[in-house]
Amino acid sequence: MDLNFYMPVRVFSGTGCLSAQFDKVAALGRRCLIVTGQHGARESGALDAALQLCRQYKVEATVYPDIPANPLLSRCVTAAQAVQTVRAQFVFGIGGGSVLDAAKVIAWLAANRPEDTDGLYARTLRCAPLPCVLVGTTAGTGSEVTAVSVLTVDATGRKKSVTDPRLYARYAFADAAYTASLPREQAVSTALDALCHAAEGMLSPLCEEAPMLFAEKALSLLGHGMPALCGPEPPDAAARQALLYGSIWAGLVINQTGTAFPHPMGYILTEQYGVPHGMASAVFLPALLRRAGAFTPMRLMRLYRAFGGGDALADVLEALVRCDVRMTPEQIEAQRERLTGCKHYARTPGGFDERLALQTLYEVCGPEAER
Amino acid sequence: MDLNFYMPVRVFSGTGCLSAQFDKVAALGRRCLIVTGQHGARESGALDAALQLCRQYKVEATVYPDIPANPLLSRCVTAAQAVQTVRAQFVFGIGGGSVLDAAKVIAWLAANRPEDTDGLYARTLRCAPLPCVLVGTTAGTGSEVTAVSVLTVDATGRKKSVTDPRLYARYAFADAAYTASLPREQAVSTALDALCHAAEGMLSPLCEEAPMLFAEKALSLLGHGMPALCGPEPPDAAARQALLYGSIWAGLVINQTGTAFPHPMGYILTEQYGVPHGMASAVFLPALLRRAGAFTPMRLMRLYRAFGGGDALADVLEALVRCDVRMTPEQIEAQRERLTGCKHYARTPGGFDERLALQTLYEVCGPEAER
Repeated sequence: MDLNFYMPVRVFSGTGCLSAQFDKVAALGRRCLIVTGQHGARESGALDAALQLCRQYKVEATVYPDIPANPLLSRCVTAAQAVQTVRAQFVFGIGGGSVLDAAKVIAWLAANRPEDTDGLYARTLRCAPLPCVLVGTTAGTGSEVTAVSVLTVDATGRKKSVTDPRLYARYAFADAAYTASLPREQAVSTALDALCHAAEGMLSPLCEEAPMLFAEKALSLLGHGMPALCGPEPPDAAARQALLYGSIWAGLVINQTGTAFPHPMGYILTEQYGVPHGMASAVFLPALLRRAGAFTPMRLMRLYRAFGGGDALADVLEALVRCDVRMTPEQIEAQRERLTGCKHYARTPGGFDERLALQTLYEVCGPEAER
Repeated sequence: MDLNFYMPVRVFSGTGCLSAQFDKVAALGRRCLIVTGQHGARESGALDAALQLCRQYKVEATVYPDIPANPLLSRCVTAAQAVQTVRAQFVFGIGGGSVLDAAKVIAWLAANRPEDTDGLYARTLRCAPLPCVLVGTTAGTGSEVTAVSVLTVDATGRKKSVTDPRLYARYAFADAAYTASLPREQAVSTALDALCHAAEGMLSPLCEEAPMLFAEKALSLLGHGMPALCGPEPPDAAARQALLYGSIWAGLVINQTGTAFPHPMGYILTEQYGVPHGMASAVFLPALLRRAGAFTPMRLMRLYRAFGGGDALADVLEALVRCDVRMTPEQIEAQRERLTGCKHYARTPGGFDERLALQTLYEVCGPEAER
């Protein structure tokens, strides 16, 4: 198994890491655009901390506070125009996966013609992106360490990813203090996202030496942290740190492997039924595990062992995964074109195709699915 | 334990990786200086492969073939002047750790005033280095993935390291085919170097989450590969790959942790007695393991387990580590100044000081040491 690796983001972690390393951020320029979502950045305390540090280091910060979940591409264009208007020299994303994905794209569009979204997806934008700094306030996406952004294309309403080495952030900060205010539903969904990243990547026939190691580490941390989401109490600091670092290791996994069929299938539930992204992928995870049991059983055993046992994983999925979406056979059949020819199928053990995808959708969301 | 990480080199591995990815190298410029040692690059076939690829991709290559083991800083200055003379746009290091360390420095000096070695060590060189591409032909140094170069300062004859993020290479290629021609003595010494990197880093009180994981991976690979160096037959392709990838994981370890006392103590044996670098460090490894047993026994158990057991490690050290250097008490005492205040002591379990270093030197190389 080969050892290929590329991940140039400089990751800082631990309590107070943002303030301890802010001199590096301040060295990026005297003006920045801070991109946030509607709640997380503020409630987590991360936005206040960042603004105070900007004042202290005399960095002029403009806040663009309006990136929703599953952000529209047009919103990134507007934000990139704002970068140009305030002549920001770097982009500072504070929030969950949607915000971080958007910040990476905004930094690239802003260095070019912000309206050139075709150039973005064709990866033909000529100028290198502005430096981008990321502070995650959820523990799921792993966007801090990937070269991917997933945005919603306005015209189609569909999620579409763009992958390019130029999308890597300059610095990423992982401080579990900023995930303490995460509402339970979001904590669960984002943890499930991280779990899917680790599992989908590790079970991919194309998984190499480095992502395999990272996946085992991610699963081990998630195996420690996720049980804390199953009880009535909010997770303690140790569990939150395990979940956050687990999500970053899982990000390192998909950064090399990409994701398997649960991700594109989940997009359907998110776009059409509003299911949060991590939950939407996780409802298809049991189907992936069954497929791995048939086609790559040894790999599946490694996965179970890393998490702390197959029973432990089953307990966590049983406690956390809920899907109330019910689709008619006609609604399922209507997804056929969408589910044809996904690149994710090559990363699925035993391969995959639209027939199997539709069958899986029927089993999970069909009229006869268990409630 | 925190999760800090930065290693921006793009690593390619596997049989034929250089030719498969040479378009990326060729994109760095139309002229390059290839830096090699006196034998390895040629005998391994890596130099011929690189020259042929340069011809194919119309990159004009000038070979600077004269970097010896433990290279003098002045040699790097000369090579950097050669870079300027031929107007090379990138530096291409092919060889063992000495060559790779030199190439990284040459690329930086060449972008500045090559004679400014004070600026190099003060890390005040103003211009960013030329891109640097590395092909390792030994499996020990890990220089491919570190921001460190160790050179011999002409005036003192002493090895001195310089660490700076600007020393990271752009691309590194790890193809175990290029280690097949390695003479046995070098294969042993370089493998011991990698083993020391993994062990010294993992046992450091400052070892964090990522380097701990990398060290366990490195030790597991070395535990598979090193027994193949103990018998009369040369190691097979699988063992060579395990040794090469193990050395790279171990490089990722020291890239974050640095090394402990065996390294600076080994420098003495290299500088004054000509002991190859890896062997010179490894003769002090048992002393480090004993110290770990006293101060951090659980960590030591993890190390043993990762390698495949304490007995397996003892067998390998017994079979491979030889030191014929014998020093008089006066010769040992003469090292006192050299061994005072090393930064490596903070990375040693239980701490360390010159008194303990001199005592260790006496035990290993003194007149009463076992032969």
